[in-house]
Amino acid sequence: MTPPVVVDGERLLWRLDELARLTATPGEGVTREAWSRVDVEARDRVAGWMRDAGLHPIVDPAANLIGRSPGVVGRWFASGSHLDTVVHGGHLDGAYGVVAALEAASALHDAGHTMDHGLLVAAFANEEGARGTAGMTGSYACVGGVSDAALDEVDDEGVTVRDRIAGAGGDPGRIAEARWDPADIDAFVELHIEQGPVLADAEVGIGVVTGITGRQALDLRIAGAANHAGTTPMRLRRDALAAAAEIVLAVEAMPADGAVRVATCGFVDAVPNVRNVVPGLVHLGVEVRDESAAALDAAVARLDALLTEVAARRGVGIDRTWGQRVPPRDVAPAVADGVRRAAAVRGLAHLDLPSGAGHDAQVLADALPMGMIFVPSTSGVSHAPGEHTEPADLVSGAQVLVDTLLDLDARLGRAGLGVAS
Amino acid sequence: MTPPVVVDGERLLWRLDELARLTATPGEGVTREAWSRVDVEARDRVAGWMRDAGLHPIVDPAANLIGRSPGVVGRWFASGSHLDTVVHGGHLDGAYGVVAALEAASALHDAGHTMDHGLLVAAFANEEGARGTAGMTGSYACVGGVSDAALDEVDDEGVTVRDRIAGAGGDPGRIAEARWDPADIDAFVELHIEQGPVLADAEVGIGVVTGITGRQALDLRIAGAANHAGTTPMRLRRDALAAAAEIVLAVEAMPADGAVRVATCGFVDAVPNVRNVVPGLVHLGVEVRDESAAALDAAVARLDALLTEVAARRGVGIDRTWGQRVPPRDVAPAVADGVRRAAAVRGLAHLDLPSGAGHDAQVLADALPMGMIFVPSTSGVSHAPGEHTEPADLVSGAQVLVDTLLDLDARLGRAGLGVAS
Repeated sequence: MTPPVVVDGERLLWRLDELARLTATPGEGVTREAWSRVDVEARDRVAGWMRDAGLHPIVDPAANLIGRSPGVVGRWFASGSHLDTVVHGGHLDGAYGVVAALEAASALHDAGHTMDHGLLVAAFANEEGARGTAGMTGSYACVGGVSDAALDEVDDEGVTVRDRIAGAGGDPGRIAEARWDPADIDAFVELHIEQGPVLADAEVGIGVVTGITGRQALDLRIAGAANHAGTTPMRLRRDALAAAAEIVLAVEAMPADGAVRVATCGFVDAVPNVRNVVPGLVHLGVEVRDESAAALDAAVARLDALLTEVAARRGVGIDRTWGQRVPPRDVAPAVADGVRRAAAVRGLAHLDLPSGAGHDAQVLADALPMGMIFVPSTSGVSHAPGEHTEPADLVSGAQVLVDTLLDLDARLGRAGLGVAS
Repeated sequence: MTPPVVVDGERLLWRLDELARLTATPGEGVTREAWSRVDVEARDRVAGWMRDAGLHPIVDPAANLIGRSPGVVGRWFASGSHLDTVVHGGHLDGAYGVVAALEAASALHDAGHTMDHGLLVAAFANEEGARGTAGMTGSYACVGGVSDAALDEVDDEGVTVRDRIAGAGGDPGRIAEARWDPADIDAFVELHIEQGPVLADAEVGIGVVTGITGRQALDLRIAGAANHAGTTPMRLRRDALAAAAEIVLAVEAMPADGAVRVATCGFVDAVPNVRNVVPGLVHLGVEVRDESAAALDAAVARLDALLTEVAARRGVGIDRTWGQRVPPRDVAPAVADGVRRAAAVRGLAHLDLPSGAGHDAQVLADALPMGMIFVPSTSGVSHAPGEHTEPADLVSGAQVLVDTLLDLDARLGRAGLGVAS
């Protein structure tokens, strides 16, 4: 019997601290935009640690960092996340998932434990969408999803994604070769901070992700009639802001009866926006999110009916622009079960929850059985310098990751999980 | 018996057309800012017509144009309005009330009819508040209400009100002498376009103004918590825009149960105002208007309770800044009765309604029995080039004005009306 595989918490936290120093904005959070000098520095640093853990790192044509440690049967588990951050972001969003996957490899290496499955550790390029780009570039490349048009995208500084990738050591002309063969890989497991308040609020250390949320955006242009607020009687008004207010409250109420998980009006703009004039025009930004595509479809129909009713009753025009639809992604139940068992064996409380934010895992879900593990985000803060997770939770999360891989390895042997329906 | 006093509609409409030509923005509505070259030209033009009507025009120290035609008993009725306009305004707001008061004098003169009361026709300076000034300067001077501080006010072009008045032929050092002695004047009657849609909507030609609205402004700063719209569960949100939406609808509902005549949220500004972030902060501008000071007091108490309840239930902070309070002004019932009788005698449909906008009459109400007559504004449009009233309605309004003065003159003889309570 091999010795138990236990992560080295001090090493994990030290590596996170080392990466946190690689920022373009010292003292003001971590700013590590994809393909930048500090982003490549971070990638090089992780490549060195990969070598220490017995992985064999390469930079693929998409500028992803990939390290592999072969197993016994010629099949693979993959784990990882991204090293890039938003501007003035935190030190955990992305980097934690990379360092923890690396820690899993290191712990296996230190214990002299070789799984039946090999372990592929990935640091995906440009998850966040640096300088206005679409984002998830590296993970899309791993499923063969980067088109020529995507490479030709010009960022906010006038540089193409193609040139950015080439400048960061990738080879955009051979990006098709970055694609993983899904036939070889039985699961992708990503560990990430929750970026929301659910686990912290429940005081639970491990989140078992049940699905990655889909999103339907909707832009409204509500046209009433601007009028003098003193001389226009209420019954003759067509107040665009009052119509918007009804919509805001109806949208807010949708999750209460289970229509969607969350629904938000985050944007409002009124014209003329003067205190003594009845608002004549309001732009309103709406979005609904759910893990079920059917729920999003039903929400679209419900919103449409709501808007028609409000428009007719109030005598306002409501132009709808149905915006971006990000489809929800399922987690492979077998992976989620593995996470639950791993947490239970360690005596760690765990909670099922969806992922409200987007992750590389949702891109890989198109090709592979996918699962995610969350650890708590203190106060739910993310994409900000105050992003924080308790060190003990960070260590527990990494332990659950390696335990999940060991659990799946023991159960699967040579059999695959199959792509989630 | 003297011949009937009948206004000359063609003359009235011609004079309005002549004044409409005096604009700083030909082809783009009437722009006649107070004390400007075209404003003084208009005043000179009206002074000439005053002489034709047997009035004796003077420019007073406040740069008001005042023409008097004495009566029999040494007491006076006053009527008039203002010649200045907003930028890109219409040709009726103000000018109609001046030309109609002049037409009353002309009609009396043409008919050879001398009332017991003399008639004072006034064109008040700077009703609109040119170049960012406080406005109502001329009428305030007639009630002794222009302080040194008001004269020292600097306008948007860096010129003091004092210098503007002096430059337009007034004498700001002697402005106290512009004050009317209320003991001599039994009523001020102002004819004006409604600037709202009530009369046009009801297809009624004469509005009997029952009071001039008071206004209470309120600025709110609603502080919730900005959060990720995907990861923050509904129950953990403190959504400042949803709180604002409740307030917008509650404010809109206040007139329905008679709390106030009109209530409006005209201004909204959300932070960070991004589609995928729960709004953390919303500024909201609220105002309520009513002809009763008690109603405004009750509305303040009701709004305060509403805001406390919403803040507590939603866990948001709501800072209130109670803004400008314009007190409502009563119309002298005897003047309103005179207007009703005058309209009835001519077979003209009339409707009681409050004035939602401010007028010189509300300033004079502090010192004198005051009344107002409205004529319809097509589609309620005002302060815009499209400001319009049907010519027949303009003529009827002027006739009702002179008939009202004759009615009051016949009833009062030497007795005053007394200032409205």
